[in-house]
Amino acid sequence: MEKKALYNLSYGVFMLSTRSGEKVNGCITNTCMQVANDPVRIAISVLNSNYTCDLIKESGIFALSLLDVECSFETIKHFGFQSGRDVDKMKDLTLPVDQNNIPYMGYQACAVISGKVLEQQDLGTHTLFIAEVTDAKLLNENAPLTYADYQNRVKPKKKEIPQDKKIVGWRCKICNYVYEGSELPADYICPICGHDVSDFEPIFEN
Amino acid sequence: MEKKALYNLSYGVFMLSTRSGEKVNGCITNTCMQVANDPVRIAISVLNSNYTCDLIKESGIFALSLLDVECSFETIKHFGFQSGRDVDKMKDLTLPVDQNNIPYMGYQACAVISGKVLEQQDLGTHTLFIAEVTDAKLLNENAPLTYADYQNRVKPKKKEIPQDKKIVGWRCKICNYVYEGSELPADYICPICGHDVSDFEPIFEN
Repeated sequence: MEKKALYNLSYGVFMLSTRSGEKVNGCITNTCMQVANDPVRIAISVLNSNYTCDLIKESGIFALSLLDVECSFETIKHFGFQSGRDVDKMKDLTLPVDQNNIPYMGYQACAVISGKVLEQQDLGTHTLFIAEVTDAKLLNENAPLTYADYQNRVKPKKKEIPQDKKIVGWRCKICNYVYEGSELPADYICPICGHDVSDFEPIFEN
Repeated sequence: MEKKALYNLSYGVFMLSTRSGEKVNGCITNTCMQVANDPVRIAISVLNSNYTCDLIKESGIFALSLLDVECSFETIKHFGFQSGRDVDKMKDLTLPVDQNNIPYMGYQACAVISGKVLEQQDLGTHTLFIAEVTDAKLLNENAPLTYADYQNRVKPKKKEIPQDKKIVGWRCKICNYVYEGSELPADYICPICGHDVSDFEPIFEN
């Protein structure tokens, strides 16, 4: 099986946020599709290791901000490359909230969809949520950011690794999985989230 | 709720084919996403009114050809705008077959994924299939066709409607739903498949 064939599936890029009581968090995902009309249903797949996934399981509600072509890497980094278990990602942001009081992207997003979970299924690395769309709003006229566009244009090119530091491992920036060893194979795929080597950063010896 | 906000979800365009005994068919879909890694799982959503949906329910196997930027409107029309209940879509085509003897696109497609259904769920208008990926192959180096690109570039612009004919209804070319009446509202959305007025064709009085 050539797993790279699956890279040719097209996706958007989303900021998925939720609230469970006083706990609010958001992460970056690329897996949402409409699965039925009348009534409208969507499906989202979320990494089990994400704090946002835990909170959605608790509350059953979420907002999905559809990031647009003006989305910056800083936004992706803020929501995607750190965990809500370590930092309060919403603290210094002034975001609008949806009908469930969940913050969504008031900038760099062309639409927002509010969802209520109807069913969930644990698929090992991810949980698949099937949700009723309780609200949907257009936010601007920009085209949605595609995952391919994020990879080709928004994501910074790889930095050179300093020669004088010894690498002891590689950390996946998406799910924090650690590969132990100095040499990460070029075709390595993260066993947890499926991202490739371009999403891994070196861990240097102390 | 602004249903148009859901149009900003990004998709690819696929030819979904299957075999159930001697019955072989394929249709056009735009809803597939990877939902888990290790093991790899995908989810596809298929219109219940599609013959292909019936056959997948029977056999539990399918091939998903990821159409690429060179895909022609003729291909979309052939698989998407007629039903396998009326015509044998595979008859005059020479297509390669996957490990399950299911024909897939040997041209105008950048990858093919073979799937085996693990679970299915009827969501009213559509059935959601969660499937194990049993094989995946890259077919060429072309970029995948996105649904936005299909709408903007591949799909022909609307023809003028002849003034001397009386319109008695509108047929959705995607799912065959019929709207009765001469005037189709500009913001009308097909209640079955969710496509907009650009996918409706007029039905003229006999």
